[in-house]
Formats: sequence, C-alpha cells, structure tokens
Amino acid sequence: MIKKVLVANRGEIAVRIIRACRELNIETVAIYSEADKDSLHVRLADEAYCIGPTASNKSYLNITNIMSVATLTEVDAIHPGYGFLAENADFAEICGACNITFVGPSPFAINQMGTKDVARKTMEKAGVPIVPGSDGIVANTEEAVKIAEEIGYPVIIKATAGGGGKGIRVARNEEELKKGMNVTQQEAATNFGNPGVYLEKFIEDFRHVEIQVLADNHGNVIHLGERDCSIQRRLQKLVEETPSPALTPEKRAEMGLAAVNAAKAVNYSGAGTVEFIYDHTNGNFYFMEMNTRIQVEHPVTEMVTGIDLIKEQLRVASGEVLSLRQEEVTFQGWAMECRINAENPRKNFMPSPGKITNYLAPGGYGVRVDSAVYPGYVISPFYDSMVAKVITHGATREEAVAKMRRALEEFEIEGVETTIPFHLRLLHHDTFLSGDFNTKFLEQHDVMSVQLKSNSAKMEE
Amino acid sequence: MIKKVLVANRGEIAVRIIRACRELNIETVAIYSEADKDSLHVRLADEAYCIGPTASNKSYLNITNIMSVATLTEVDAIHPGYGFLAENADFAEICGACNITFVGPSPFAINQMGTKDVARKTMEKAGVPIVPGSDGIVANTEEAVKIAEEIGYPVIIKATAGGGGKGIRVARNEEELKKGMNVTQQEAATNFGNPGVYLEKFIEDFRHVEIQVLADNHGNVIHLGERDCSIQRRLQKLVEETPSPALTPEKRAEMGLAAVNAAKAVNYSGAGTVEFIYDHTNGNFYFMEMNTRIQVEHPVTEMVTGIDLIKEQLRVASGEVLSLRQEEVTFQGWAMECRINAENPRKNFMPSPGKITNYLAPGGYGVRVDSAVYPGYVISPFYDSMVAKVITHGATREEAVAKMRRALEEFEIEGVETTIPFHLRLLHHDTFLSGDFNTKFLEQHDVMSVQLKSNSAKMEE
Repeated sequence: MIKKVLVANRGEIAVRIIRACRELNIETVAIYSEADKDSLHVRLADEAYCIGPTASNKSYLNITNIMSVATLTEVDAIHPGYGFLAENADFAEICGACNITFVGPSPFAINQMGTKDVARKTMEKAGVPIVPGSDGIVANTEEAVKIAEEIGYPVIIKATAGGGGKGIRVARNEEELKKGMNVTQQEAATNFGNPGVYLEKFIEDFRHVEIQVLADNHGNVIHLGERDCSIQRRLQKLVEETPSPALTPEKRAEMGLAAVNAAKAVNYSGAGTVEFIYDHTNGNFYFMEMNTRIQVEHPVTEMVTGIDLIKEQLRVASGEVLSLRQEEVTFQGWAMECRINAENPRKNFMPSPGKITNYLAPGGYGVRVDSAVYPGYVISPFYDSMVAKVITHGATREEAVAKMRRALEEFEIEGVETTIPFHLRLLHHDTFLSGDFNTKFLEQHDVMSVQLKSNSAKMEE
Repeated sequence: MIKKVLVANRGEIAVRIIRACRELNIETVAIYSEADKDSLHVRLADEAYCIGPTASNKSYLNITNIMSVATLTEVDAIHPGYGFLAENADFAEICGACNITFVGPSPFAINQMGTKDVARKTMEKAGVPIVPGSDGIVANTEEAVKIAEEIGYPVIIKATAGGGGKGIRVARNEEELKKGMNVTQQEAATNFGNPGVYLEKFIEDFRHVEIQVLADNHGNVIHLGERDCSIQRRLQKLVEETPSPALTPEKRAEMGLAAVNAAKAVNYSGAGTVEFIYDHTNGNFYFMEMNTRIQVEHPVTEMVTGIDLIKEQLRVASGEVLSLRQEEVTFQGWAMECRINAENPRKNFMPSPGKITNYLAPGGYGVRVDSAVYPGYVISPFYDSMVAKVITHGATREEAVAKMRRALEEFEIEGVETTIPFHLRLLHHDTFLSGDFNTKFLEQHDVMSVQLKSNSAKMEE
C-alpha cells in the first residue's frame, strides 16, 4: 500500500484527500502557494511546503517545484485532486518517470479522453452512443456545411482541444455555421494552440447525467450509478444529485454499461466520470466527455453507495483489486450536493472574496460538509470561490431536499456574500421540486424571485 | 401528523429535535432558562420563550411554566428529549390532561419501568432474563441475609426509587450486607422519599449492551440492534458503538427478542432502550433497566440502520404505524460516538465551563457532529458539560475508529478544556482497539498515559 502521498491541490479537495489518507494511515505532504499559507490543508497535512507565489501557473501548476517537493519528501504517490494538474497527461508521465505513482489513470487514457475528436472516435468504436456529427476534425467550411446538411441544424462547432464550455459555438443555419467555423478555428488556434474543430448535432433540451466509474489495474471496471447535474449556470454545476429524477433502473443499467465500456476502451484505471447528454424526451443518451479524475460532486455517490471514492483511488493506485464487484454495488436513499460559493447571487453571481468573520457549518443526521474554511479564513480572489460543499442524504428526494433546506438555513457565514440565498430559493422552486427540468433551467427561471416560506425567511435574516 | 411541537429541553438534544421537526415541516417552540437565552436551540426554533431562571427546577423542570407556554403557543405535542422531564410520568399525565401529545410512552409504561422492583417483576413475568435476586422489596436485614445466602455473594443493594448509579451499594459478605442495608435504606428514604431496597447478585465483569426498540400504538414493536456502552467513568457513558464487538448475530437476535418482549410487557410506545448486563464470559445477559426516552447515544443506531429515531418518535406520536417491519431492518457498517465534554481529563475530569473562543467542528465523509455550541458560546456551569457528540460511521470498526481519530484531531475548541485528549488516547489504547473490555476498563487502565502516534501528537499541539 502507498505510504506517503503528496496532495497536489488546495481547498476542500486537498482537505478531502488528506482526511482519507489519515484514515488509511498514509502520511501526507501538502503544497501551497504564498496566498495559501494559512489554509486548512496546510494545517491538516503531516508536512507542508510552499511551492511558489499566488499565481497558479507559478505554484499549483508548477510541475518542477511540485516534483522537487515530491522527491525531497520521498512520497511514493501524488494525488492531483481535480483541476490544476489532474488531467495533465505530461504531469502523469513525469510522475511515472520519477517512480512516483500518479493517483489517476495512465497518460494514454488521459490523452485519449482529453482530445475530444479522438475520444469521440474511440467511443464510437466501443459502441458508446455519440451525438451524430463529423467523423473527426472538419477540414474546412465547405465540408462543415455538407455535414450540417446531413445531420440537420442546429449544430455545434467544438474545438477538439477545448473543454469546460470553452471553444464552443452553436450554428442554427448555414450562414451562422460559416461565420462560426472561422471564428472558432481562429480562437482555438489562439487559445489552445490547435485550430482543429469538429461538428455535432446540437441537442438543446437535455439533462446532464454522468456515470461514476471505478477501475483497477487488473481489468475490473464497475459503475456506481449516476449523478444528475442539470442545474448549471453558464456550464458551471451548482447542484448535483443521485439518483437522477429522470432515470429508470433499466436506463441506469444501460448508461452504466455504456460508461463501463467507455472506460474499458481506454484501459481506464481509478475513479472517472463519463458524462452523458440525456435526452429525457425520448430516453436517448450520448457520450459528452469523460473526466479522468475525481469530481467535485463525488460525495453524493459516496452517500448512496457507502463507497469512499478517494480511498478506492488510493487502493487502486496501490495495485489492489477493486473492493467490490458490480453486483455488490447497492444504492441507499437519495443524496444532493449544493456548492456554496463566495458569490453574490443578487448581483449576477459576482465573486465576493474576503475574510470570513463568523463561520458555523450545519451538522446533525444526514448532513455532510466538505470545506476548507474556518472563522477568520480569507477567501482569495485568485482561486475558485468555493466556501463549502453541503451534501445531504435522506431516504427520498423529498427528505434530501428538506435536509438541505434546514442545513442551509442553519449555515452561518459572515464577512462574504454566498450563494446560500440562491440555493434556498431553488429548494423552494416548484419546477426544481418536481424533478422535471433540464440544463436550461437557470436560463429560463428567475430563481432569486422565489418567495421563501416564513420560517426560511426568518432564518435568512 | 403533529403540526407544532414544544421542545422541553436544551442543548444538543433540543437542536436535534428541532432539526427533525424542520425537516418534517413541523413548527417548533423552544423554551429556555435565563442562562440559555443565546443558545442555538433558541435561534433555530420558530418561536422561543423564557420559562424561568437558571436553576433547572425553576425552568426546565418547571411544569407549570412549560405547560403555560405550550397552551399559549397552541402546540399539539411536547418532546421532552432526555433528562429533565423525559421520564416523569406525572408530566406525561399532565400533557395528556391538556390534550397535548407527550412524545414518549404512556405514564403507565414510564412508571412500570421507573420503579425498579416493579420493572424486575414485570420482566420476570415477560420471560426477560433478570439477575438472580430478591422477589421485590426486602422487608428487613434478616431477610436480606437469607436471600444473599441463596444467591451467593457478592450482592448489590438497590433502592427501588434510585437510578443513574445513585442508591446502590455492593456487599461482599454478611457484615457488609448488614451495614449496607441500613445505610442504603436510610439514604433512599432521605434522597428519594422511599426507603424500599431490593437485592441482586452483583455481576462484576460485564459489558453494558443495550437494545434500541421502537413501538407504535398499533401493537408493533421492533428492535434496531444493540449499542455497546461499556466505556464508562463512574457510570457515565463516554463512548458508545454499534455493533458490539462482543455479540454474535445469534446473541443479537436473542437479546433483541428479549427487548421486544420487555417493551410489549408494558405496552410500550415510541423509542426506548432496554439496557442489559452482558456477561461476555458465558454469553448470559440480564435486564438492567429500560430507559423510556430517546438516549444520548441514539445516533450510532441511526448511522447503521438509516432510521431517523426522532422522526420515528414523532410519527408514532402522530398515530402512524412504524415505517418498517423487523425483517426490513438492516445494519450497514460500524458506528461510534464520543461524547466531548468541557472537562479536564488531566485533572480528574474537572468541569471546565467558560466561553468558547474558537470553534471548528470536523466534517467530511462519515463524520457527524451533534452539538449546540458555536464560536463565542458560553458553557454554563449549571447544566451538563457537553460540547458535542462526534459520531463516525465506517465499513468496519477499524474504519470507524480511524475516522474518529482524524475527526477529533481536526476538532478545534479553544477557551475551555475538553475530553478530546482522553478520547484520542483511548482510540490508541490496545485493549480498547482489541474490542475485548468490560465496564471496568477505565478503572483498570490509565488511558491518559497512552502515547499518541506522532501525527496525532502534532495535531494536538
């Protein structure tokens, strides 16, 4: 088993990984930028080293400095968390070259899934449904027009090196397509150093449903059910839940199998997520992308399956066989996660960095808080604005929602604005409560105008 | 369903009940003494009323004032929590007379179980094993000597009106018995207004194993497995866990059935706990007493069964049928609770009241904190000294222990001394870790002299 891990990240995910390591009796090394010297992950780790100035590219993305710390502290593994270097195949490669285990899949798997047109082709070959579109990179505008006529408008132009909502453009007719091709190619060349774009049919009304997979280095791949992440603002997930209100057990099994096939197609190892476009009007689903790392929303899966995903990552990276088989995976109840950010939902989610002057997280039965903040902590404007992930677990969706409401009503955070008022109103929104919504929900509904019930309103004061 | 509940308690259990009510959409009324005006239960309830000065007998035991608030606020139920009025049959009677539902069993059941020699006889009749002893109250010393010769020394003299470790005396021979009878009868007359005592064989080497039961008003009674509470200091429980390291599935079923029979014998309703003396040297168990209320340590049962005991109490009190049958009760993993008190374990657990200047509870996967404190809260010398209950849930005992260690290492409380250093050392004690111990563990072992591992020691600084 791995004995000492460097956690190449910050914030709540660094804390999450350190906690799992402590519970497994694995020593931990934290790294931090100058801005993060008072962070919780620094306090909780067995050792901690500054690896550079505040700017991410000089610290959390500074591979040279990180590898120096790893070598000096003699760790046998590096856990990259999410973001930063988590999906950087070069970094995974360098770890391997230094005889340090990268807690994640192989550089090959990262590359296969990170290059979008390659991933599309690989999935197609593996029998995973993909959105109708071009067969790889589109050579030029003429070819794009031909393909769009075949698959029908609207279409979406995607930079193969893009991701996370960047390098994407929708075209509803030939004119928009011609313009879009030029602009997207130019942008992609500038931003990603790769002008390659491809075309897909644009599905407008869909749910974001993703499948958690877990694979070991002995050929075993299982899935742990889905997460529904349809509540998004500008492609940023705000609320995630499992199960999805839109899936039947049959559809879950079908998508689960597709996700397992996707992982097998790239010899996947560790924890990963296959994201799907789920067309809930007809039950069709299409491969969107695979995230080759742990995800922010992994706790909801842990709550319903009882499986500790970070510990499984560490076990798999240690060469162990998966701790359970597909038929041993069971699902208990309903779990939901709200991402609480230091943003002002009344001012268009403007970031609200600053010092947290008062902090009291909710507790009690069925409430989990994953956070790296504390009273007196300063939320930096230089990194993401997450304050805490609040996860609730109940017997039913109704109970998970009720627990989330009371948890958020109790949550005391002073000194910065947070998205709690947004979440509280969402949790009182009829459409959200009905479970029948898609990824456009937040575009189509003015959540902040929802009236709270009187006791919720009182708690908010 | 009950619509509005007065919570006749304070501290963490008041918060626990208010949380369950909020999640069930039940309105809540808090009561508080003058000392508690800034308490969390006051802040979280929909309404809150001062019911008297600091002294418990003028506030939390002040039935007149509590019933006035209940009537004025038009609640339809009162939840008594634990302690204070929770096992006061008169109070339950008065609630009934005022047409307010007492969330608990009938006055009859409370009385049957509260009078120890009556409970003994009732259990004997119901076929629940009892410790060999006198057939009810012992008339005089001569009779006591005769009985002691029959059952064999050592024996224990118990005041029938006593409880919680009071009104109890051990006798190892005839001389001690004669002396003990006189003293105990006199003390019982003075302290409890009832000189009646009875005799039992004194079992020295046993585990405290208790069974959680749940009963509705329709004749259904189920049990939710056991809790092992053998880690006690002067009869005060400090750590509880489920399952018990000492029980086999067969013994669990046997004790569970005995507990169900105990509850049925008094027409029990709601949540209750049947406490047993478990002689782990031979597998015999004997009825100790039944607590006719929710217990401090109820969360460990919730973690492994997924059943919310407070919600079940409220449902049963509303007249609903139990939400599950015995064969539907399942147990997942291992749960442990540490009671964190404001006491100094280095100074013989001397109370350490005062202002909490810094407070950060642990979070993350498998860690639950039930607490009513916050940064700036003042722990009063007038009530119990509880700061928080930390509950962990893992797949195995080893994982529950590992989670507890890391949770307690993370827990930041400044301004008062706490029992965390004691718990951390206990969690590193070989005998505790072996699972093989009895209720004398803390008498026989100097837990505070245990050496912490280096990283635990570092966290403690």
